[in-house]
Amino acid sequence: MDRFPPRFAADLETLLRWRRDVRHFRTDLLPEGLLDRLLDLTMLAPSVGLSQPARFVRVESEACRAAVVANFERSNDEALRRTEPDRQAAYARLKLAGLREAPVHLAVFTEGDPEAGSGLGRRTMPQTLEFSAVLAIHTLWLAARAEGVGLGWVSILDPADVGTTLGVPADWRFVAYLCLGWPADLSETPELEREGWERRRPAVVLRR
Amino acid sequence: MDRFPPRFAADLETLLRWRRDVRHFRTDLLPEGLLDRLLDLTMLAPSVGLSQPARFVRVESEACRAAVVANFERSNDEALRRTEPDRQAAYARLKLAGLREAPVHLAVFTEGDPEAGSGLGRRTMPQTLEFSAVLAIHTLWLAARAEGVGLGWVSILDPADVGTTLGVPADWRFVAYLCLGWPADLSETPELEREGWERRRPAVVLRR
Repeated sequence: MDRFPPRFAADLETLLRWRRDVRHFRTDLLPEGLLDRLLDLTMLAPSVGLSQPARFVRVESEACRAAVVANFERSNDEALRRTEPDRQAAYARLKLAGLREAPVHLAVFTEGDPEAGSGLGRRTMPQTLEFSAVLAIHTLWLAARAEGVGLGWVSILDPADVGTTLGVPADWRFVAYLCLGWPADLSETPELEREGWERRRPAVVLRR
Repeated sequence: MDRFPPRFAADLETLLRWRRDVRHFRTDLLPEGLLDRLLDLTMLAPSVGLSQPARFVRVESEACRAAVVANFERSNDEALRRTEPDRQAAYARLKLAGLREAPVHLAVFTEGDPEAGSGLGRRTMPQTLEFSAVLAIHTLWLAARAEGVGLGWVSILDPADVGTTLGVPADWRFVAYLCLGWPADLSETPELEREGWERRRPAVVLRR
């Protein structure tokens, strides 16, 4: 089982190059069962002490979605006000979320102190619980993209308000709000680079 | 470029299933240039506002490696003492790091407030900087495994001490200490599950 097809590493690189943070979605639904299958794959992600702390919420009601959109708009307006004056016009032109079009909304939390794992590996670094949820999200992102499904990560939100809107247990910590659906366009270049906001840079590697 | 080979999604699932947190390494070196190539691929990972905040330190000196091993042993002894009494014997049997055998040691930090991205996306959730480094690490993990290289994430460390040992800038935040090398064994089952510490569970998905 250690042998992948000869082209696999190159195909994986293609996936990494073409994965995007998608903000432009078609509105048509995903096929029945596809999201469940992708969520099953997230459980193959690494997690600290095999604690598997990621918790998912499929946000389907119009009321909850509208509250999240309002949360985003408040947070984004505030971010615009706090942007350096010479970049505000550029910021205002960016489309930073596909909340209104994406057929699937998925909120991701971590349980505060999961029984699973019995605390292994997280005593000195409790943030490894959230890190584990991030590893599950990236697994979802790549598995989705391999099926042609786009994912966009929305972080311009008041995290406490998301938990209140969704009525999750008080000890859950908000990690990410994800939009999924068929992307409206494809590009090898990040949208923030195409829009002139930022560009890719080489890795910074020190030696000690 | 949206078309992957028909088998690609299945091969990706195989990669996700056989990726492991590796703690048993062969001691032989990786081929010249392979680590550099893998680190280049990490720059394809998503990052908040395209801030690409991950910073890598290749830890090569015996003095630095010995200090990290000592840090791990202190932290692991303390973790053992704090483990529930009825699980201490099981904890003590676990091999939780391959620091002594792995040919490559890589510490990962984030820059505290990187210029890149101009703050976009991280005002309400500054932890998205560390999350971005985690996405880079997972990219490295999968790209390495696709080449047969194993990776193990060591979190049983005093994070401040790692920064002091490696003499990184004061505003860098420690995210992870990684061991890389050829795995000594292969398995579809997480080592913590094989050792009876924990088992995989299904995804928890609520609807709202």
